[in-house]
Amino acid sequence: MNPVRIGLLGLGTVGRGTVTVLRRNQDDITRRAGRGIEIRMAAARNLAKAQNFASDIEIVADPFKVVDHPDIDIVVEVMGGIEPTRELILRALRSGKHVVTANKALLAEHGNEIFEVAQETGGMVAFEAAVAGGIPIIKTLREGLTANRIEWIAGIINGTSNFILSQMRSDGKTFDDVLRMAQDLGYAEADPTFDIEGVDAAHKLTIMAAIAFGMPMHFESVYTEGISQLTGKDIQYAEELGYRIKLLGITRRTSEGVELRVHPTLIPAKRLMANVEGVMNAVLVKADALGATLLCGPGAGSEPTASAVVADLVDVTRMHTADPEHRVPHLAFQPKYLCEVPILSMDQVRTAYYLRLSVYDRPGVLADITRILADLEVSIEAMLQKEPSASAQWVDIVMLTHMTVEKRINAAIVRMEALESISGKITRIRMESLDQD
Amino acid sequence: MNPVRIGLLGLGTVGRGTVTVLRRNQDDITRRAGRGIEIRMAAARNLAKAQNFASDIEIVADPFKVVDHPDIDIVVEVMGGIEPTRELILRALRSGKHVVTANKALLAEHGNEIFEVAQETGGMVAFEAAVAGGIPIIKTLREGLTANRIEWIAGIINGTSNFILSQMRSDGKTFDDVLRMAQDLGYAEADPTFDIEGVDAAHKLTIMAAIAFGMPMHFESVYTEGISQLTGKDIQYAEELGYRIKLLGITRRTSEGVELRVHPTLIPAKRLMANVEGVMNAVLVKADALGATLLCGPGAGSEPTASAVVADLVDVTRMHTADPEHRVPHLAFQPKYLCEVPILSMDQVRTAYYLRLSVYDRPGVLADITRILADLEVSIEAMLQKEPSASAQWVDIVMLTHMTVEKRINAAIVRMEALESISGKITRIRMESLDQD
Repeated sequence: MNPVRIGLLGLGTVGRGTVTVLRRNQDDITRRAGRGIEIRMAAARNLAKAQNFASDIEIVADPFKVVDHPDIDIVVEVMGGIEPTRELILRALRSGKHVVTANKALLAEHGNEIFEVAQETGGMVAFEAAVAGGIPIIKTLREGLTANRIEWIAGIINGTSNFILSQMRSDGKTFDDVLRMAQDLGYAEADPTFDIEGVDAAHKLTIMAAIAFGMPMHFESVYTEGISQLTGKDIQYAEELGYRIKLLGITRRTSEGVELRVHPTLIPAKRLMANVEGVMNAVLVKADALGATLLCGPGAGSEPTASAVVADLVDVTRMHTADPEHRVPHLAFQPKYLCEVPILSMDQVRTAYYLRLSVYDRPGVLADITRILADLEVSIEAMLQKEPSASAQWVDIVMLTHMTVEKRINAAIVRMEALESISGKITRIRMESLDQD
Repeated sequence: MNPVRIGLLGLGTVGRGTVTVLRRNQDDITRRAGRGIEIRMAAARNLAKAQNFASDIEIVADPFKVVDHPDIDIVVEVMGGIEPTRELILRALRSGKHVVTANKALLAEHGNEIFEVAQETGGMVAFEAAVAGGIPIIKTLREGLTANRIEWIAGIINGTSNFILSQMRSDGKTFDDVLRMAQDLGYAEADPTFDIEGVDAAHKLTIMAAIAFGMPMHFESVYTEGISQLTGKDIQYAEELGYRIKLLGITRRTSEGVELRVHPTLIPAKRLMANVEGVMNAVLVKADALGATLLCGPGAGSEPTASAVVADLVDVTRMHTADPEHRVPHLAFQPKYLCEVPILSMDQVRTAYYLRLSVYDRPGVLADITRILADLEVSIEAMLQKEPSASAQWVDIVMLTHMTVEKRINAAIVRMEALESISGKITRIRMESLDQD
């Protein structure tokens, strides 16, 4: 059988990884797919550099030439960005091609439109590489857990943030110092906003939630809080209490609706997930029949991401001449069965909390604080009071609460901050037990 | 569309779990599969009990009635055993049905025949439930990692053994005591031989190796050593040296051939896998493009295993009217591309070792021992000498070696055991760094 013909959009880190992996493992890939996978054409910004890297591939500057080319079966989009990428993908679909993409931002923000067009054209859009790099989490959620009602997902899905948090804990360095180091090592971009402010994780969470719960993408509803405000002090106190702080993307189905949130989170240090360090990613899925299952591995990088791109290529190669009814639906559920589910606002979310207060060290202060919490029905699970230094009259108090509604904690914080015996803002970090029962 | 019609062989733990999950999650499963999945008929040993459990299903005593029934599309085999199960599955295939099975022993020992017949009849044989319960490891190896050349797999793939080892370590109890406890809790069977002697893990390893390396099943070539000879002393010494002992199934591709081995293994305590405790399973896969990825979750039990059975049912439901060329090959590689690979004998395996010797505490003994090791080119990475008690003249010495060939270690052990200053047998446990680079 003739090889399937690929048009590649982008020859950056992931594009080059894809070319390299397809070349190196050509034999094994063909033995699996039943036919060859051949890159016919690639669009790249720097033509000379691209030709030098891949002299056997026809390189063009204009990506529209690739999507319009009649000899291309599958378009691989690894150029990133929203426009003109969205337009390119829609045009590829409308000209009868299939698409493999690693573009989490595009899918989270315009996935509903893209999947609708794919449905009309009978095209496949495969996107394993969009979430957690090479870890096959999309396949697991879409195909491995079809028997289950998925209850919640909690993921370390941004390697840059996890690297920074791991280093802050192990080396006691500040956020800014570690960020610079991450930039030097190539783990963080020059403009790291998307990674450290949780936007990248929110894109990935949006995609996982859609597949898990059979609902459209709702990136605009994800609560997003990054790690740039975290201090070494809180990491240290959390450690003393038996917890680690991780930037988690969390989605959970409750009787009132679905939670969608990305924020720094205290998790028990004994959990496997708490011990996922550096640029690694990990996704913990709780499902009713299976229980809890953890997938962990490299969440970014050239070849790990290419591993997911090529796995998608093999899947699409196998299925592209099959009747669409035989295919796995894009979002796990058949399109006609997708349905809107209420998304909870952060105020409505139930979780536990870490609170750090700087209090004036004198009798009665703790009574004031605990009275406020009691009035709002927030109960305390653990407390840590640091010895004040001889000269200072202000002392840190750390409290861990039981589960409560965020609205109550916010109300308690407003009242506590109004106390004269409390200095400055109260630090509030959410806390999850990740109980697997 | 009409529901797909299932014939169930066996209504034990997994069979009942399958019925329960299909009932409870009927809506979500139909939304995903695009059509209903209906159990039409089931074969059970105890008719009255089965009818009581599932009054809406036609129950028969003779499993052949199920495989011969013209209205059944897919046979789910969860009765276990080799015969008549093998005959039932072959007959189901030959009558044009598809098969979903959880039977690792049958596949490891007769899979080559079964897949050959399936190839002839155009039938699918799906078996996610056969390895690591509900963890989608078969899907991951077969479909998620198609881009990769798989280098090695190391798995905690027997929950009973892992529970026993976890308890021996945490409670300091003996193997026999923990085994009795596991039996009381239902984690070990009355005859636990298959679990504790590594046979069950060897079955699962056989299946994973075939899929990873594109070779037929070779259960007969798996080196199998269980945990029944492990002492608390070795678990304790390993811990002091920064290691945990786990029963691992390991398969590795080397330039000389493929390793297939199940045995107790020291692994660094800091690895995530070392911290997988109790009845949980975990599989670590090292692949050239992806790097190392870990999957972890419940490896047994009624609903976790049913989760895998039903996921297979959804896959088969989607594909059973599709042209066979669109399907994922049973063993990941297209049948014509499967090929025999030399299997290494244990003598040829390269790994590191933990050795425990009881030596007579007098000058020169250590010189004798290290001389023997040096002669055989075995180098020592770490050594632990326990203080002798005041009364005893025999003292324990523990050595960790660097990587070497097993033949050399065995030769060294024979020579060392011949020394007068060494008492009894030397304990030898293999050791793996599970290095992810």
